[in-house]
Amino acid sequence: MSRRRQIYEGKAKVLFEGPEPGTLITYFKDDASAFNNQKKGTITGKGVLNNRISEYLMLRLGEVGVPTHFVRRLNMREQLVREVEIIPIELVVRNVAAGSLSKRLGIKEGTHLPRSIVEYYYKNDELQNPLVSEEHITAFGWATTQDLDDMMALALRVNDFLTGLFLGIGIRLIDFKLEFGRLYHDDDMQIVVADEISPDNCRLWDGKTNEKMDKDRFRQDLGNVEAAYQEVARRLGILPEDGQGDHKGSKTLQ
Amino acid sequence: MSRRRQIYEGKAKVLFEGPEPGTLITYFKDDASAFNNQKKGTITGKGVLNNRISEYLMLRLGEVGVPTHFVRRLNMREQLVREVEIIPIELVVRNVAAGSLSKRLGIKEGTHLPRSIVEYYYKNDELQNPLVSEEHITAFGWATTQDLDDMMALALRVNDFLTGLFLGIGIRLIDFKLEFGRLYHDDDMQIVVADEISPDNCRLWDGKTNEKMDKDRFRQDLGNVEAAYQEVARRLGILPEDGQGDHKGSKTLQ
Repeated sequence: MSRRRQIYEGKAKVLFEGPEPGTLITYFKDDASAFNNQKKGTITGKGVLNNRISEYLMLRLGEVGVPTHFVRRLNMREQLVREVEIIPIELVVRNVAAGSLSKRLGIKEGTHLPRSIVEYYYKNDELQNPLVSEEHITAFGWATTQDLDDMMALALRVNDFLTGLFLGIGIRLIDFKLEFGRLYHDDDMQIVVADEISPDNCRLWDGKTNEKMDKDRFRQDLGNVEAAYQEVARRLGILPEDGQGDHKGSKTLQ
Repeated sequence: MSRRRQIYEGKAKVLFEGPEPGTLITYFKDDASAFNNQKKGTITGKGVLNNRISEYLMLRLGEVGVPTHFVRRLNMREQLVREVEIIPIELVVRNVAAGSLSKRLGIKEGTHLPRSIVEYYYKNDELQNPLVSEEHITAFGWATTQDLDDMMALALRVNDFLTGLFLGIGIRLIDFKLEFGRLYHDDDMQIVVADEISPDNCRLWDGKTNEKMDKDRFRQDLGNVEAAYQEVARRLGILPEDGQGDHKGSKTLQ
């Protein structure tokens, strides 16, 4: 790793130049942050788990025709991805009220939303990733209306698929964040899902107990953060030593 | 049941007048037919299982915002549904080549399709439900272009959700048939998913063994038809005596 040129270091990941043009290597750290970096910590083994969980979900999305930047996992903490032009807008898809939506709009956490709500956030740490509307995005040229249409359509597909997948393993998909990038080939441009999909950027509640199985355990000091991430991986069937998506005898997190 | 007015008797179900205007009762029989009624038989307990499986899937689809005709299950073999104007077009969504697609186009069963393919069939037993195109459908007035757009969009959403859900319980959704109806309220009309969603009209293969868990067991005389339907229900977690979606110790069908 030491000989690779580092391109960017984020809060949870490091990006390196890839082995060939148009590729990058994502390294998953154990570092965790929350509340726009006001809270920091480490979740031992998180990087390894997120690398695997994100690999699994990106591959399954690819199989149903949702384009992503993912190429292949390289080792425990690294994956190869296509280099894309990251669109500085984060999409949050919400099925159930939680987090900032609950706080900002006074809607009790756990309230089932009348329909799935997609929010846009401007990806800018200094500004603490503010909520923005289509008006801001198109006026400032962060994305075009066509980009947003494509991102919205993909986000809703991802939501349908992941809601079903998690339901099948006894987990409620409360909300999740997606990032997108522009992938150029010749004169063509395609919007693809980028970044990662993991318990770092999904809210996942146990289907029976509503126990939190995501980064809220870190945000809210609920303990057993790593065990929760592990349980998600186990139910997805990607920790083979622990069963294949079997969630009958699921472990209690605390 | 004897005092209810029978409205229609199909191959696998009977429709009765419902308890109030605008509702119907669907009774699920154990009768099975295949190859446009050329093969007939009985699968003991099928009606009970399909009633429950279809209830479960319609409810989950409703929760993610896919409108259906389903109201509630009444008993082991009956469910209450909204009366809709059935559109005489069956949509088949295919992810993997099988059945008539394989036969007609010479594509080996099990071939993953380049993308999900949606086919239209004209719902007419005498004509053996022929494959038709949008041209036929709109020219003969069976559905409007707007109807078809709505049906297609819903079918793709159902496909994303069910593909994820079945993946979560270790089952591959190969293809499935959907029917739609027009639901009228005042001056409004909405296209909703109608009929049933069950192993009678889905192809479901075990994720590891590719064993068939659907009506192809009946069509192809593979035996253990009822056990296959039961296993689908068990993995969905709707046969509580047998576990909650646990598919680790899944039974072998033959």
